[in-house]
Amino acid sequence: MNNIKNAEILCVGYELLHGDVVNTNAAYLSEKLDSIGITVTHHTVVGDEPAVLMSALSAAFERVDLVVTSGGLGPTYDDLTKETVAKYFGREMKMHTHSLERITDYFARSGRIMTRNNEKQAMMPEGATVFDNDYGTAPSLAIEDATLGKTVIMLPGPPSELCPIFSEKAMPYLKSRSHCAIFYRNIHFFGIGESALEEKLGDLMTNSQNPTVAPYCKEGEVRLRVTAKADSENEAIALCDAMTERIKDSSVGEYIYGVDTDTLEEAVVRELKKHGLTLSAAESCTGGLIARRVTDISGASSVFLGGCVTYTNEIKEKLLGVSHETLESFGAVSKETAVEMAIGVRRVTGSDIAVSATGLAGPSGGSDELPVGTVFIGISTKKGEKVRKLTLSARRSREYIRQVSASNALHMVLEYLKNIEE
Amino acid sequence: MNNIKNAEILCVGYELLHGDVVNTNAAYLSEKLDSIGITVTHHTVVGDEPAVLMSALSAAFERVDLVVTSGGLGPTYDDLTKETVAKYFGREMKMHTHSLERITDYFARSGRIMTRNNEKQAMMPEGATVFDNDYGTAPSLAIEDATLGKTVIMLPGPPSELCPIFSEKAMPYLKSRSHCAIFYRNIHFFGIGESALEEKLGDLMTNSQNPTVAPYCKEGEVRLRVTAKADSENEAIALCDAMTERIKDSSVGEYIYGVDTDTLEEAVVRELKKHGLTLSAAESCTGGLIARRVTDISGASSVFLGGCVTYTNEIKEKLLGVSHETLESFGAVSKETAVEMAIGVRRVTGSDIAVSATGLAGPSGGSDELPVGTVFIGISTKKGEKVRKLTLSARRSREYIRQVSASNALHMVLEYLKNIEE
Repeated sequence: MNNIKNAEILCVGYELLHGDVVNTNAAYLSEKLDSIGITVTHHTVVGDEPAVLMSALSAAFERVDLVVTSGGLGPTYDDLTKETVAKYFGREMKMHTHSLERITDYFARSGRIMTRNNEKQAMMPEGATVFDNDYGTAPSLAIEDATLGKTVIMLPGPPSELCPIFSEKAMPYLKSRSHCAIFYRNIHFFGIGESALEEKLGDLMTNSQNPTVAPYCKEGEVRLRVTAKADSENEAIALCDAMTERIKDSSVGEYIYGVDTDTLEEAVVRELKKHGLTLSAAESCTGGLIARRVTDISGASSVFLGGCVTYTNEIKEKLLGVSHETLESFGAVSKETAVEMAIGVRRVTGSDIAVSATGLAGPSGGSDELPVGTVFIGISTKKGEKVRKLTLSARRSREYIRQVSASNALHMVLEYLKNIEE
Repeated sequence: MNNIKNAEILCVGYELLHGDVVNTNAAYLSEKLDSIGITVTHHTVVGDEPAVLMSALSAAFERVDLVVTSGGLGPTYDDLTKETVAKYFGREMKMHTHSLERITDYFARSGRIMTRNNEKQAMMPEGATVFDNDYGTAPSLAIEDATLGKTVIMLPGPPSELCPIFSEKAMPYLKSRSHCAIFYRNIHFFGIGESALEEKLGDLMTNSQNPTVAPYCKEGEVRLRVTAKADSENEAIALCDAMTERIKDSSVGEYIYGVDTDTLEEAVVRELKKHGLTLSAAESCTGGLIARRVTDISGASSVFLGGCVTYTNEIKEKLLGVSHETLESFGAVSKETAVEMAIGVRRVTGSDIAVSATGLAGPSGGSDELPVGTVFIGISTKKGEKVRKLTLSARRSREYIRQVSASNALHMVLEYLKNIEE
């Protein structure tokens, strides 16, 4: 059995070299590998060219135990990752009957015509471990060469296929090949920045060796990952949990909105279900993003009733009953409008909780009194209404302003749900 | 003078290898270099370790004429890009007085205290071309070794500094060193897959050298990029246009929705503006995604009035006036409901065009008659209503089904707008 210490991410595809696609796969895979104690030492991106890929593969295997590739498993003539890797390991390509059946079945069920080149996707190097692809047609695979002590995992390029296959199939495969047990917990924060967190936690973060405590940032949210290594999984879990408790009890504890909760929207859906309450949203500047994020969660339909995207003043009046006077006196971007939007959508949908967002996402449309980045988030519940005003930097992107606004709306819902006396 | 043909992007920083930061710099630089005819052949990411960086640099210069680095120009002890590159080219590090003055001035103006290690940022390899950094403290620089025929450009890691410095300073520097012109067009398709496109276009794609024709895929959409190189820009444009016409006239021409249009939503917003028409959306399974995608486009507010996210039957009746009988007899996921949703949102918002989406995005909730992946897209205009039924594979992710549904809704709007007689 192989004990994998380090890895290189090798992404294949001209779309990356042309800059058409941002390489999110490399970041995703790095974080996942890091979490199970495999150190990523290089990322490499090459085009769809067998000779270049072969030379990148050889260079990588001179440095590391594991190479994880993404891309080049598709049905077209320039998808040659499998063939090149097979050649590197000196393996023949053979038809993998199980994969061929799955691909044939996939096309039959989706009513599409299967072309000859789709069959190529079922060809596999001898002795490969095949991971079924439940998210597309290209199966993933791993090859382990015990003599060389080298392993390769090949994944499809689209993140919508790569991410679930890696976490569901490749991670268990890798874990089963590792000697030591690794366990981690993610502690999710909202309303505190990375540097403030670092200052308050001090030594706990910088000097902790096992578990390690490392920060990760994403639009308005910070996450601390607590990672422990031990001989057994139970020991690793115990180390993680002890550190998690210390952080919860520290001065930053109040900013925690969840542990091992992937996202704010997942936490919102879970808490709504727990309390048997329903939600609706009235969105102006976020333009459907709050609804979209909540309904990203499977099963959201039992707690999210719906909402309105009201881009113009007229529609705010018509759909939500925001008063003409409010819009005239205070403007569409005001705490008064945010409140009336939340009240309005709660009334028309009959939900228990309603949130609203109105603001300036830019890049155009700001003024001295109301610069781009000014956003009002409202919430309406049986306990009344609340508004949060955001003043984000006008130099931030439209996408950033919209995401942070939606995150704040979700966070306000979460705060309300947490403070409900049971 | 150097004629730079190809390049490698070399990014330095452990934050990339840990997956904390997505490498947007590589995509940005690739696209920029590509646009001036410099082919990017590799992206490499390494940690902040001089020996590893030196070996990556040597490997890169065995392959290419130009290396563009990002990161490692900061003031801390582990920022060693400049020093390592200087060593590679055999140049001494010297204090660059102009840069030192700028950094001192920067600290004085921002009221922050300048530490000793900030002075290190003004040390430059002999003979470097220094690009002032107007966005931070780390100056950028280029070194050209005429004997070796090699050039390196070093940029700071933060995208907010790297992007403007590269486009304002490094691009003119590079353009002045390039001989040939390059031009490309993107042809956007909808309703045809990558492999079907490839089969139909055959030789045109595989054997074409100048222009080249390369496919790019994204949830339900395929794009072909036609790229031509020539001595002058006019010649390159002519080559591109001739190929684009050939593809338009071929059997795949009917699937083209635009040339040099970035996304379906951009095409929709542009066409709506052109015709002076407005849009609204009624969304069930897409849960706000149609609205979100349209409002991603800055300036959408002049053509997108708003919409409703109606997740429950009750809300469909209440907000959109979908009839109780329709929901009872045909169900929420039916062409009848899709039509009434579109009519309803068009009436309540008063928009010229309305789209609707109702379906099963999964993963749970499907049945034999209505499997997950069944989606009805409706459109309502003054010319009446239309419905498109999608039967996507139930094995596709929720995200995929939602994105493809939203894309189909946008595509139906685009088709309507294209067929308006003027």
